[in-house]
Amino acid sequence: MHDIILNKKVLAKNDAIAGENRQKLKEKGIFTINMISAPGAGKTSIVEKTVELIKGRLKPAVIEGDIQTDLDTQRLLIYGIPVRQINTGRSCHLDAHMIYHTLPWLFEQEGLDFLIIENVGNMVCPAEYDLGEDLKVAVMSVTEGDDKPLKYPALFSSSKYLLINKIDLISYTNFNVIKATENALRVNPELKIIKTSCVDGTGLQEWAETCCNRVF
Amino acid sequence: MHDIILNKKVLAKNDAIAGENRQKLKEKGIFTINMISAPGAGKTSIVEKTVELIKGRLKPAVIEGDIQTDLDTQRLLIYGIPVRQINTGRSCHLDAHMIYHTLPWLFEQEGLDFLIIENVGNMVCPAEYDLGEDLKVAVMSVTEGDDKPLKYPALFSSSKYLLINKIDLISYTNFNVIKATENALRVNPELKIIKTSCVDGTGLQEWAETCCNRVF
Repeated sequence: MHDIILNKKVLAKNDAIAGENRQKLKEKGIFTINMISAPGAGKTSIVEKTVELIKGRLKPAVIEGDIQTDLDTQRLLIYGIPVRQINTGRSCHLDAHMIYHTLPWLFEQEGLDFLIIENVGNMVCPAEYDLGEDLKVAVMSVTEGDDKPLKYPALFSSSKYLLINKIDLISYTNFNVIKATENALRVNPELKIIKTSCVDGTGLQEWAETCCNRVF
Repeated sequence: MHDIILNKKVLAKNDAIAGENRQKLKEKGIFTINMISAPGAGKTSIVEKTVELIKGRLKPAVIEGDIQTDLDTQRLLIYGIPVRQINTGRSCHLDAHMIYHTLPWLFEQEGLDFLIIENVGNMVCPAEYDLGEDLKVAVMSVTEGDDKPLKYPALFSSSKYLLINKIDLISYTNFNVIKATENALRVNPELKIIKTSCVDGTGLQEWAETCCNRVF
């Protein structure tokens, strides 16, 4: 309980900084999304595919959140875009303060209009920490089970989009897309859902178009 | 940073209660494991299979940790064993205090010698909160990527066993078991690794024997 009371104070402070971040990003004309999922749901692969598909139309940068390592940053640097790694150490989520400190670097990059923040792999706390983004994107993979929206409601209720990823694996699992969709919409009736696969390309064009349409 | 300083105080308090839990569980002769993984790695399925395979030899109980819902408890009650749900609300992990409050219920159950605690699906904070268990068991599924031990080292370094689960799906993924094993052992050279599948049964007998051997 003590844990949770402390947390409220931390969250209030976070929200104030997130407000500043949002204001600054808006002034610079940078549309920002915050991608959240369990570890291994395929966020980095989606970021790679998104960057490939939107390049030429948008000018993206990526902030990579991880407890340790810069493995994801290494994967993204080959796309020739600005990428910044944040290692959170023992913290299970990015917070607004961490993003605040990357803004000077971000604003040095020329002509950016789109920022993808890939959060630490965790379905719980990242949903509670506003970073100053325009919207949150939840990612869940079909190997995780269709009950996840009910078990981790904060993520699904705070997100605008849900990508149901690794859809190419669906026939090898007992994942029920109809049930998953019902569960997700029960938690958040406004959620927009796209089924995606970075293996066979399902839904990626639709997702890339969505990104472009949000920015312009 | 403030977040992390607060956290140290919380952890010290948690550790003291975990010590009490450990003492009480030991006095009652209950061997306790704390299972930790990302959401959707298959913990509940492993718990189901473990209970099936050890019943008759061990007398198990299960504590289910979830943010919300009692879906996992409902799945386990059909095995005719004592199951207790803990809903953590906004907390991303079980803590020793939550377990402390379930001990009176647990000690009312007759003849128990084995307790499985299924933690909240999260690879970060559950690894830091001692609950008073005898050992931690990490679970990762092959759909999550073989780099996870490097990205979430605290879990792998604090666990005695690692179950590499959903091994039946391996040919549909780019998961490299050798790399995953190397990464895990780099973080924790003492880690004992078992490959498991709740679909085709791989490794479950070995895992069940391991449980029985730890208790006796």
